[in-house]
Amino acid sequence: MKMSMDCIPCFVRQAADTVKMSDLSDEEQKRLMQNVLQWISELDFNETPPAVSQSIHRRLRFILPTDDPYRTAKDLHNKMAAGLIPSIRQHINSSPDPLMMAVRYAISGNIIDLGSKNNISHEEIYAALQSTPLQTIYGNVNSFKKAVQKAKNILYLADNAGEIFFDRLLIEQLSGVKITMAVRGAPVINDATITDAQAAKIDDIAEIIDNGSDAPGTILNDCDMEFRRRFEEADMVIAKGQGNFETLSDEQREIFFLFRIKCPTISRHSGFCVGSYVVANSFSLPDYSSGAVS
Amino acid sequence: MKMSMDCIPCFVRQAADTVKMSDLSDEEQKRLMQNVLQWISELDFNETPPAVSQSIHRRLRFILPTDDPYRTAKDLHNKMAAGLIPSIRQHINSSPDPLMMAVRYAISGNIIDLGSKNNISHEEIYAALQSTPLQTIYGNVNSFKKAVQKAKNILYLADNAGEIFFDRLLIEQLSGVKITMAVRGAPVINDATITDAQAAKIDDIAEIIDNGSDAPGTILNDCDMEFRRRFEEADMVIAKGQGNFETLSDEQREIFFLFRIKCPTISRHSGFCVGSYVVANSFSLPDYSSGAVS
Repeated sequence: MKMSMDCIPCFVRQAADTVKMSDLSDEEQKRLMQNVLQWISELDFNETPPAVSQSIHRRLRFILPTDDPYRTAKDLHNKMAAGLIPSIRQHINSSPDPLMMAVRYAISGNIIDLGSKNNISHEEIYAALQSTPLQTIYGNVNSFKKAVQKAKNILYLADNAGEIFFDRLLIEQLSGVKITMAVRGAPVINDATITDAQAAKIDDIAEIIDNGSDAPGTILNDCDMEFRRRFEEADMVIAKGQGNFETLSDEQREIFFLFRIKCPTISRHSGFCVGSYVVANSFSLPDYSSGAVS
Repeated sequence: MKMSMDCIPCFVRQAADTVKMSDLSDEEQKRLMQNVLQWISELDFNETPPAVSQSIHRRLRFILPTDDPYRTAKDLHNKMAAGLIPSIRQHINSSPDPLMMAVRYAISGNIIDLGSKNNISHEEIYAALQSTPLQTIYGNVNSFKKAVQKAKNILYLADNAGEIFFDRLLIEQLSGVKITMAVRGAPVINDATITDAQAAKIDDIAEIIDNGSDAPGTILNDCDMEFRRRFEEADMVIAKGQGNFETLSDEQREIFFLFRIKCPTISRHSGFCVGSYVVANSFSLPDYSSGAVS
């Protein structure tokens, strides 16, 4: 999916957030942002949003004194999520349809996304969780359920730190199946890496791999051979979050995208309203999902 | 007030909104935005936010086929405001303190600001108006009331189209005084110009002048001599909106800023929470209001 005009301010905001996390002085931060604006102006605006973000954040990590500026934020989100998980697990297990309740919570966890918003308060997360059991899931729920029933080998593409604890609750419901969870190959924004998958103890219930790439999405050409083999061999792929949707929505294989629609660009491309909880089968996406609609 | 790091994404968003209003193709819009990012990277990041915006929008108007890209949006906001005014006037006149009720509505009208947000729905405006009578006004209400009682010659600096109809309701309460309303000297974002002041029929109750500048604020050095004379001679200056606050908060004369706090940067500089309805006397602002706090 090509980036749209609306993505441009979002890239700049993401970069400014990252620069502000450093201990550079105000003057130095502004000077660096002048450079960032110039880099962005030279990038290919027909790429997917995560491809553009990848270039910006790779360069920022090279310049900033840390190669993981969001580590503190990610640890905080992991800690908060860890505290919430036991009671949510109970709630899922006692619900009439634990699988779909777990899907709802996994999508709610997708609110923890510093790529689409520069801050997420505890209050916002609690409010999202409170309304979770009542959320309608839009998209292709039946086709998702059938695929889960048939699957023997599921590849689960994680999205963000914190959120990954909620992914764990969904994986717990996919029992009796081989599950591989793939995380990013290097830190980018607050996307989950191996550290976060281990924090959520995903290794107790699934194999963890990284995709070898530092894009905040899944750019197959940029992922390593092992990941691509797993991607081809899996009989079901579940992809969490907007970044994975933006980079994989044009792929020719069936993929189930689980995410919350957080911006008008994704709303136009997916055909779902902003705020919706969505399980979308890549084979059922609108035709225009591959074109840029600004 | 110097711009902060948070202003940078906002400039880019404002520019993208403006470019999207044109009938350029998606490709042309993206190419233009690449140029815009480069211009912004070359601007002085120690200026006030309206000074930076002024440079960007002046250049955009030169390149785009129209010199008033927001004219349609401004007409729409004027029309909507015009329809709301008669019942709000009644409500103001029947309230125990009509002056302060008019101040509340004038500040509510400040929600119509396409500089701080890329869209404002009718629903948001109606919701803001419904809660208006109950809003606490923070800041220097008593000093404002005293100044109004003493004033013989008030200069009222308008902010946006649409909003200017609400300013009219406040001006109606300042009776028996010479009022001059100043608007921007040329179109910039959705800031009010002579056209909007005339649409609100301000000329029935006040003299209208323009300030000779195309900044979305009041940069005195950029305003014409006549405006500056009026600014010096007025015994009370009322300045609406964030743009006027950002450019005039360091001036050495007493100014009453009437506005809603719409972003964290202004919140830090003014000392009031985001969302607050504020009447701030420039002599009572926190000391750090002149420095950049990012």
